Amino acid sequence: MTNHPFPQRPGISINPDGKSSTALVWAPFAKSVTLEKNKSLRLPLNRSSSGYWEGHDLPLSDGDIYSFILDGEKFPDPASLSQPQGVHGVSQVVDLNHFPWNDDNWESPQLDELIIYELHTGTFSKEGTFYGIAAQLLQLKKLGINTIEIMPVAQFPGTRNWGYDGVCLYAVQESYGGARQLQELVDKCHALGIAVILDVVYNHLGPEGNYLPKFGPYFTDQYKTPWGDAINFDDAFSDDVRHFFMENAIMWLRDFHIDGLRLDAVHAIKDLSAHHFLAELKKKIEQLNRDYNRNHFLIAECDLNDVRYINPYVKGGFNLDAQWCDEFHHALHSLVTGETNGYYNDFKGISTLVKSYNHGYVYDGIYSPHRKKTFGTSTENQPGHKFVVFAQNHDQIGNRMLGDRLSELVSFEMQKIIAAAYLLSPFIPMLFMGEEYGEHNPFLYFVSHSEQELLKNVREGRKKEFKDFMGTQEPPDPQSENTFRKCILTPPQKWNIQQKKLFEWYRFLIQFRKQQLSRNNDARQHFRAGNLSDCLIQLTIEKEDTKLLCFQNFGKTMVSVELSGKILTSSALKKFGGPLKEKEEIAFEGKINLPPESYTIVENS
Amino acid sequence: MTNHPFPQRPGISINPDGKSSTALVWAPFAKSVTLEKNKSLRLPLNRSSSGYWEGHDLPLSDGDIYSFILDGEKFPDPASLSQPQGVHGVSQVVDLNHFPWNDDNWESPQLDELIIYELHTGTFSKEGTFYGIAAQLLQLKKLGINTIEIMPVAQFPGTRNWGYDGVCLYAVQESYGGARQLQELVDKCHALGIAVILDVVYNHLGPEGNYLPKFGPYFTDQYKTPWGDAINFDDAFSDDVRHFFMENAIMWLRDFHIDGLRLDAVHAIKDLSAHHFLAELKKKIEQLNRDYNRNHFLIAECDLNDVRYINPYVKGGFNLDAQWCDEFHHALHSLVTGETNGYYNDFKGISTLVKSYNHGYVYDGIYSPHRKKTFGTSTENQPGHKFVVFAQNHDQIGNRMLGDRLSELVSFEMQKIIAAAYLLSPFIPMLFMGEEYGEHNPFLYFVSHSEQELLKNVREGRKKEFKDFMGTQEPPDPQSENTFRKCILTPPQKWNIQQKKLFEWYRFLIQFRKQQLSRNNDARQHFRAGNLSDCLIQLTIEKEDTKLLCFQNFGKTMVSVELSGKILTSSALKKFGGPLKEKEEIAFEGKINLPPESYTIVENS
Repeated sequence: MTNHPFPQRPGISINPDGKSSTALVWAPFAKSVTLEKNKSLRLPLNRSSSGYWEGHDLPLSDGDIYSFILDGEKFPDPASLSQPQGVHGVSQVVDLNHFPWNDDNWESPQLDELIIYELHTGTFSKEGTFYGIAAQLLQLKKLGINTIEIMPVAQFPGTRNWGYDGVCLYAVQESYGGARQLQELVDKCHALGIAVILDVVYNHLGPEGNYLPKFGPYFTDQYKTPWGDAINFDDAFSDDVRHFFMENAIMWLRDFHIDGLRLDAVHAIKDLSAHHFLAELKKKIEQLNRDYNRNHFLIAECDLNDVRYINPYVKGGFNLDAQWCDEFHHALHSLVTGETNGYYNDFKGISTLVKSYNHGYVYDGIYSPHRKKTFGTSTENQPGHKFVVFAQNHDQIGNRMLGDRLSELVSFEMQKIIAAAYLLSPFIPMLFMGEEYGEHNPFLYFVSHSEQELLKNVREGRKKEFKDFMGTQEPPDPQSENTFRKCILTPPQKWNIQQKKLFEWYRFLIQFRKQQLSRNNDARQHFRAGNLSDCLIQLTIEKEDTKLLCFQNFGKTMVSVELSGKILTSSALKKFGGPLKEKEEIAFEGKINLPPESYTIVENS
Repeated sequence: MTNHPFPQRPGISINPDGKSSTALVWAPFAKSVTLEKNKSLRLPLNRSSSGYWEGHDLPLSDGDIYSFILDGEKFPDPASLSQPQGVHGVSQVVDLNHFPWNDDNWESPQLDELIIYELHTGTFSKEGTFYGIAAQLLQLKKLGINTIEIMPVAQFPGTRNWGYDGVCLYAVQESYGGARQLQELVDKCHALGIAVILDVVYNHLGPEGNYLPKFGPYFTDQYKTPWGDAINFDDAFSDDVRHFFMENAIMWLRDFHIDGLRLDAVHAIKDLSAHHFLAELKKKIEQLNRDYNRNHFLIAECDLNDVRYINPYVKGGFNLDAQWCDEFHHALHSLVTGETNGYYNDFKGISTLVKSYNHGYVYDGIYSPHRKKTFGTSTENQPGHKFVVFAQNHDQIGNRMLGDRLSELVSFEMQKIIAAAYLLSPFIPMLFMGEEYGEHNPFLYFVSHSEQELLKNVREGRKKEFKDFMGTQEPPDPQSENTFRKCILTPPQKWNIQQKKLFEWYRFLIQFRKQQLSRNNDARQHFRAGNLSDCLIQLTIEKEDTKLLCFQNFGKTMVSVELSGKILTSSALKKFGGPLKEKEEIAFEGKINLPPESYTIVENS
């Protein structure tokens, strides 16, 4: 597809002898590029015809520190694998190829089996490292999830950040434990049957420490994004920019054994060329799958309600495996909290949630008052596992002024309906760390910038964003270490009784999903949702010789429905922290009573 | 697809009684909108909920002048049908619905029959009006073309302009004769069996007299185009902007009986929504076709080499009928002139022309040195009539500093090869006015702005553009009336003998195309091109029981080819102004001699 002579991964690659290295850096306009080792030895690189600078058999091995000197000015390697002194400091050589992997027989779950658990490395554990995650894997295993999704780990400024301010896209955040700890974590996950999805950001770079523009035209002013100029995916020199990001994706899958990538905000990956970056990336990954006999997922966060991203190539699609379906969240959140501010204004009443059950997108070609335009397209014939749904995620919690989780916004009983609402949906469910036991600690917005002017803007921007909600309160200072510390999860041994009961409900739901719903490629066809009243949703799940009926009573009163069958379980049972003492399975005739704020599963043979 | 309450055509519509009118204008942020009739009577409009202002049974009829007063400031109607005093002046009511059409039985040619003639109303005739065109239709009929394509006619500043600076998109340029003359021209064309394509500009508005931003968010800063901010096709309020442009397209087809639209520079119509404006426009036109039992074409100028524009909906395409194929031009132009500056640098040697014959796009997924990126996609399975080809057009001539046509750049004999090169291609051929007799007058860039600052920028921009080519010459002043006058075509009675011979060659080629190639839906499958040497191309056209071979000898020497068959004709014949006195059809055995700079058609049974 291209006759441009591409090199392999940019940066420093250690040669097979383990003692020497090859350097590769794209700097099409530079007049000279020199590698400086250990702040003393200077090794000039040679320019190749296509704007790449190369050095072979350089005296560099694992652990050596270095910088690039471009026309006299010193910068970290744009494809550095390690930044031991942060984003502004020296780069460090890392040997990615000699990790003793134990996962030769690993097979990742299929797409329609995924039960994803999103986590943030810095606040998931007290340690705030990959080891901290590894130490909790058995607990996650007990919960029943089979996939963790790690928020971005590319080196960002300082030690506290969600990860979306990453600027050294090939370097694993030093404070998280760096590349080696990440390899160890993935290996351990695989040993326990847990797949790993990594969140990667290919639509912008962070506002501090982004030296890419010094090296080449990585950005274009042809498009605007919420974070300034867009990354140059379709303008002059874009082949090399695309190569930089594609090699990055390949590195995570090939060298870290990551099972899939969650692509952040792909609507901000602006590409009007005949071959969209995402389609080309997917084709590259498909080649990797063939080469390594593995299966890797690409899951997009996309705010366009456009099936082009998930459609197959023959339909002009990019063939991504799945996409986040934020509108399921918005419909559910708005229903259970009654919130109507901002985009929640587009999601009023129970019918939008019912629509999302049946169609994924709520806005599928209808007018959106919040966006002030007709929005989205039909999801007809898309299987359910093309959509990832959730009741909470880092954005939906963290972008609230106080970072308050649903545990702070709705009753305990309602939290259980919410959990079932998406865990027993025809889509791929995703939990956000801590929700499985109703964590009370917030997930706040936090940073640790070193540039004062930027910090001032961040703080002011935060205040401005929330000016209508602040009242007497100010938003927590994002730069304060305390803001970050508040977000660290409560360890299981400190959970209260209600939290333990909620965990049991999540466990039950995940188990139930695995037994009853997973590996059903056309789950969506056998699912239908309807609202029986303003506060009651009935899900019908057709099974081979029986029917499951799930009743979500969002109301505050008991509701009776005419029906015969057998109650399989209910969120209102005592073992899940509810008021009902009855035994689990109850046959009934003619009428079923649905307690207030309850989720009831009925078998209707 | 939308639940937004759309009105019909914006502007003033005369009611069926012929005496009163309805007014409609979109101004979502205005606090008051008043219509001022004849500079005296003030008629306040009422705001509807969706940002439209309406007035019913207003005392306005054909010929009345009026303006809109927005929050105290006076502007022309954004959807004015007539601007008798220019783009800054009052608007005038026009009755579009009572033209006495005579074309009830008109059927436009099919796409694969089209032989298009592009013309500029202002310089096509001495009169510079639609009547001036009408007076020459018999001459065009004699030439054999079946379609004229009129460069944009929307009201532009002053009286001299290519049309791409149009700002009143619903008003027909007053100096061309206005709406009524255009209706008359189309009616006369249809009576003579000539279809009419209108060039419309939906990617930008001209730099003078664009009052749209005063009325609403017609533009967005999310994208940059060569002409500044892009038109808002996908941002907030874009439904109404799209409606404005869609109703405009529909007006030309419905009210002026235009047969097709040539959509200017669609690569600058930036729309990343799930329903691209062009696909929605095409669907609207398809509905119009059904409603009126007519067939209307949408042909795009597009600089993306992306089949998405012409692919059917099921392939994720926009289903446009055809697109211009500039690269055929570039390959041909570069070959015959030897020019390699600018984008011609991407088209070196005979092989790029051969590639365009076989593939349409030359850059179909390969690296373009000029664009500095991999460009384009494959045209596999696209029929030939999806691509419009030409040897010259307004841009390719007019964007040269001296506006010099090929008649000034290559020999007379070469002009004949060039004509045959695209007229006997598997694609839709398009002539540019005057080339059929080798017009010597240039087609220069001309404007007639009234804003001095703008004019200064235009003049300076022009000098800057050509600074490397100017030598001792300055580019002609675009504002000078003389620049415009130089471009007016030479009337047939003043053609010299060579021009008449060239015209005969064009006539022959068009006739030959109609007999041998038209109505062949899969022309491309039966065509193949190959280069026999650095200066000789052979086209092979498979017929039912015979083969046509066309030899293009671009070289300056006689070439012999081993072959038996019958020469059907040659550009070198005396009757076409060439040196050969031989009779027309010559059978030959074993060897054929191809004169220097000649085009020879052979039947190879």
